Amino acid sequence: SIDAKRLWNDLMETARIGGTARGGIRRLTLSEEDRRVRDWFKAECEKLGCTVQVDEVGNMFATRPGRDGTLPPIAMGSHLDTQPTGGKFDGVLGVLAGLECLRTLHAADYETHAPIMLVNWTNEEGSRFAPAMLGSGVHAGVFDRAYADSRLDSEGTSFAHAIEAISYRGDVPAGATRIGAMFELHIEQGPILEAEGDTIGVVTGVQGMRWYDVEIGGRESHAGSTPMAMRRDALPAAAALVLAVQGAARACPGAVATVGTIAVHPGSRNVIPGAASLSVDLRHPDAGALDGIEAAIEQALAAICTEQGVSGTLRRIWDSPPVPFDPRCLASVRHAAGSLGYRMREITSGAGHDAAYIARVAPTAMIFVPCAGGLSHNEAEEASFGDCGAGAQVLLRAVLDYDRRLAEG
Amino acid sequence: SIDAKRLWNDLMETARIGGTARGGIRRLTLSEEDRRVRDWFKAECEKLGCTVQVDEVGNMFATRPGRDGTLPPIAMGSHLDTQPTGGKFDGVLGVLAGLECLRTLHAADYETHAPIMLVNWTNEEGSRFAPAMLGSGVHAGVFDRAYADSRLDSEGTSFAHAIEAISYRGDVPAGATRIGAMFELHIEQGPILEAEGDTIGVVTGVQGMRWYDVEIGGRESHAGSTPMAMRRDALPAAAALVLAVQGAARACPGAVATVGTIAVHPGSRNVIPGAASLSVDLRHPDAGALDGIEAAIEQALAAICTEQGVSGTLRRIWDSPPVPFDPRCLASVRHAAGSLGYRMREITSGAGHDAAYIARVAPTAMIFVPCAGGLSHNEAEEASFGDCGAGAQVLLRAVLDYDRRLAEG
Ligand SMILES: NC(=O)NCCC(=O)O
Ligand SMILES: NC(=O)NCCC(=O)O
Repeated sequence: SIDAKRLWNDLMETARIGGTARGGIRRLTLSEEDRRVRDWFKAECEKLGCTVQVDEVGNMFATRPGRDGTLPPIAMGSHLDTQPTGGKFDGVLGVLAGLECLRTLHAADYETHAPIMLVNWTNEEGSRFAPAMLGSGVHAGVFDRAYADSRLDSEGTSFAHAIEAISYRGDVPAGATRIGAMFELHIEQGPILEAEGDTIGVVTGVQGMRWYDVEIGGRESHAGSTPMAMRRDALPAAAALVLAVQGAARACPGAVATVGTIAVHPGSRNVIPGAASLSVDLRHPDAGALDGIEAAIEQALAAICTEQGVSGTLRRIWDSPPVPFDPRCLASVRHAAGSLGYRMREITSGAGHDAAYIARVAPTAMIFVPCAGGLSHNEAEEASFGDCGAGAQVLLRAVLDYDRRLAEG
Repeated sequence: SIDAKRLWNDLMETARIGGTARGGIRRLTLSEEDRRVRDWFKAECEKLGCTVQVDEVGNMFATRPGRDGTLPPIAMGSHLDTQPTGGKFDGVLGVLAGLECLRTLHAADYETHAPIMLVNWTNEEGSRFAPAMLGSGVHAGVFDRAYADSRLDSEGTSFAHAIEAISYRGDVPAGATRIGAMFELHIEQGPILEAEGDTIGVVTGVQGMRWYDVEIGGRESHAGSTPMAMRRDALPAAAALVLAVQGAARACPGAVATVGTIAVHPGSRNVIPGAASLSVDLRHPDAGALDGIEAAIEQALAAICTEQGVSGTLRRIWDSPPVPFDPRCLASVRHAAGSLGYRMREITSGAGHDAAYIARVAPTAMIFVPCAGGLSHNEAEEASFGDCGAGAQVLLRAVLDYDRRLAEG
């Protein structure tokens, strides 16, 4: 049995690394705060006798040996980076619950068949460096190291520069670390489990996600002396696109779409914006539906540009297709939750997760626990003491169940 | 006769202070670049034997004595600060043409009846510190020094801090400098003179201008796992307001309205914006029309907030009512342009100018010259050599005509 109090204590302790006045965490990937939590993570794993290795893109792998040293490890893992105004649970719960599982195995001197591994993936949030799930994506061969290194944050700092600045460029080649299977515990970040009174979500897959960059080009001119009819104002065009994106998602059941960033140039009260740039985040469980919405947004953009007399481009910068999780891993999650007597339901993840990329290279599944009001990517994000403990307990049981099945061949 | 070549030379020389790669100027008020051009201005005026005084908000007054030392000076003036991506003529022409007038009087050893003054007003653009025309506004008693000092730029630096950082806090109390009349030469910044083939605009007044700050409050949450129906997304609301502002101005002949700045919080691709802030610039020659549009925008905001499930406030932060210029000053401008044989027309200014505030405390008028394509607040802003010279010549003649009429009582 895991120690729910020890887990909660770790959650609250590490929440101080980058902790905000409003009770959230600001721990952008590869920042000084990220370095501090990484150092802490490494030290805690080493205290349990684990070996900690770091790969070229900063992914951290802590390994606890099993009986059969030739087997690839069964991994648990998630991420310790957060949004700029993130909560205390998104990602962190999955890593710290994994640590709690290792502690429990250590205390019980429990010997598994396969080695057990705990992973902290780099830049899951995608907030500082787009796209999200970058570290797990490099591990899975979706991206290469050079691509990761080339990503720039909004200040123009590269991933390569940032990882070297905090000395977390490891020497393990990306993708070289063997993983036999992976289980990721995470808060749901949506409203379903709470609304239906379930404690455990058996996550059968992750919906498809696409990110876009939109650039609008108009002409800067004087806000007071340029007649309305002579304007080529980039902002009303950007605004119309924001509404078109919302409208396209509203019109397609199951879709969500968000413009999370917008900037205008030069950004002066009395200057008609000459340029605008915005991001679009589009998701749906079905790739065909994504194609349809993408086409609708492209059409809308063309019509808006004509109406407003500006130019516009929509560039898809990321496409993470819908992912189904592995039936054997899911069976272990179901068995674990069932044997512990938790109310559970199957659920598709609305958020992207490292597990979505790891599923390409190893059998993978996820476990969700509820969060208050379905609120996430918000400093007020909250998960209960009981649910965090339940999630960690199910994680440990699922891993041990999978290990037992392995041993039984 | 003024020396158009010497004037052009000054324009091109000083354009290097803050000059941009695209041929414009970035010389934000009270920046290091502003300090450099101020130092240059002071030195040039002193070379002509003028006394240069600086008031508490950095307005610079260069005085050339006249026959009657008891008379308040006839002023020429404009501003040397620019937009972040400003052109080479907006404001600068009015100051450098005034300098050329002083040089011409100096070279001819011409003695005026009243003293002649050249003024460089602080923070006309309003881009770094809102509102615009701040220095002339303090001089005219529209604002006080404490208000000016309290203004913050987008980085949180105060006007008080910035003026002290460049050592341009003078010891002359704001408003204490006597001005008997003021003439301001400026590029039109709009398309009318060029379209009609006129060289000189006799500016009969300045339209009314209002600035607003809009704040939208929603709720940050996850872009992937928050269903469309559960969102309180601040950005679509802001976007709808941008379009409402454009629509309200389009619906009212003679009105212009612009959203020049927009920002969302926290500004992450996969976070639904929890807050948005934007500026509105609204103008019309008639105050009643401004009231009507303001009410329409307020109503639109309320409806948008209901539809999007967010909160919103519109705060008017500046109101500069329509200004009629002084008939005697206008007569001198007309006389000057007519006697020189220039094609002229009467025109209302779409842009705000220091003259609009000075008109409250002294007889004032303005002279416009065309600019290419009506383009201003743009690095490509262009005025011809010939038109700049014509403007300076009309400025000098108008001042001397006004001075002669004064002498004649
Ligand atoms: N779990 C999570 O919030 N991941 C960030 C990537 C995304 O879904 O936007
Ligand atoms: N002339 C000029 O561009 N002034 C700036 C104030 C305004 O926005 O009109």
